[in-house]
Amino acid sequence: MKKYAIKFSYDGKNYSGWQEQKNKTTVQSVMEIALAKIFGEKVKLYASGRTDAGVSALGQVAHFSTGKEFPRGFVGYINSLLPEDIRVLKGQMVDDQFHARYDVSKKTYVYKMYCSDYDIPLYGNALRIPSKIDVKKMREEMKELEGDHDFSAFCASDTEVMDKTRTIYSVSLRKSGEFLEFSVTGNGFLYNMVRILVGTLIDIGMGKKSNMAQIIASKDRKMAGKTVSAKGLVLKNVEYDKVKF
Amino acid sequence: MKKYAIKFSYDGKNYSGWQEQKNKTTVQSVMEIALAKIFGEKVKLYASGRTDAGVSALGQVAHFSTGKEFPRGFVGYINSLLPEDIRVLKGQMVDDQFHARYDVSKKTYVYKMYCSDYDIPLYGNALRIPSKIDVKKMREEMKELEGDHDFSAFCASDTEVMDKTRTIYSVSLRKSGEFLEFSVTGNGFLYNMVRILVGTLIDIGMGKKSNMAQIIASKDRKMAGKTVSAKGLVLKNVEYDKVKF
Repeated sequence: MKKYAIKFSYDGKNYSGWQEQKNKTTVQSVMEIALAKIFGEKVKLYASGRTDAGVSALGQVAHFSTGKEFPRGFVGYINSLLPEDIRVLKGQMVDDQFHARYDVSKKTYVYKMYCSDYDIPLYGNALRIPSKIDVKKMREEMKELEGDHDFSAFCASDTEVMDKTRTIYSVSLRKSGEFLEFSVTGNGFLYNMVRILVGTLIDIGMGKKSNMAQIIASKDRKMAGKTVSAKGLVLKNVEYDKVKF
Repeated sequence: MKKYAIKFSYDGKNYSGWQEQKNKTTVQSVMEIALAKIFGEKVKLYASGRTDAGVSALGQVAHFSTGKEFPRGFVGYINSLLPEDIRVLKGQMVDDQFHARYDVSKKTYVYKMYCSDYDIPLYGNALRIPSKIDVKKMREEMKELEGDHDFSAFCASDTEVMDKTRTIYSVSLRKSGEFLEFSVTGNGFLYNMVRILVGTLIDIGMGKKSNMAQIIASKDRKMAGKTVSAKGLVLKNVEYDKVKF
């Protein structure tokens, strides 16, 4: 058996998320069908983590093992079997010990918003927010997220994870025209954490909430903002110490 | 009869362009079906100009006339009848003499590109171009486009328009991360003109062409670059002297 890791990108709009589910079209199921055609056997993919329905990825990573020959021109081959909204960018053989999920050292998510009084169809991969939003205040308060914190306040209540401490290495909020892009890099994220962080930041920008440090310290989901739509969320990048893409 | 003008936005991906065509789904036909439901009669839309298959609009403008009552809450009403990829932003009564096409004073198009070695599904509304492109050179040469010029070199050869002189008021090329956005404002545009301008600028950025002034002066379509894909093109804004949106 040999192990391979692939880096790939998808538009999540037409998928019920990453993970295989009965009677649903998921990114995993579509990719495993393509892999089965290439290798002539069932090949299971292990991603860096699930993404929910509607969430997209610029640089998701997954590994798989097979005893079969890894074909030359693999990337072009698998892309020819995949729908246009999933593209494999790179593939490489990896050490037998590598695991796309357990070995993650950093992940970066971005969340795209646009400031407008109207829905704009062309911006379907971004969340519409009000034009009058205090970006400066959002930038000030979001800095409180950096560091090691118990992020219980920003975790969907139905999760079973015990330790809710995560490390956020950096956050940024970039404004470009009417677009606002929140970016967050951390060692891991709780369920719905980025979407709740963004919901809270929007509340702060609109003056409905004011103190991020207090919200973190409360460890109370009810103190944070709502879980914003999946459509603006993109898994931008996954980093490993052992493997470079 | 009263005349109304509407400003609207669409994602062109799923449409065979603006103009009504037999057995094809066009933005015009879909919108006229919605208007017929509202007014109980056939209502014809006159847009500021056609957009080709796959071209999107942020601020297209059209007018229509009807003897029927203009309903309160018209914008919300028509949007409830339209698919999500077409949104009416505003509507207003206009002077009987107003014409959405003949009265245009300025139009702005943008063309979206992203620099990448790979296709990225999430960037489906932008054209992929090579990472190594000389943006500085593109910016220098594109300045030659400003002013009054005979743009015959940038016009699809099958056009019947006689006078190919147009005025370009301004051009810009904005870089933001891996994105590159070309914006051009003029008093009017020839058929495929923006897409050929962009194709030429890309050739300049890649060192395949070098002198925009010479290309303009040649008035020869063969001197300019190719017509790039419709998918990156967006009609951003239409301006009128008489009507403000």
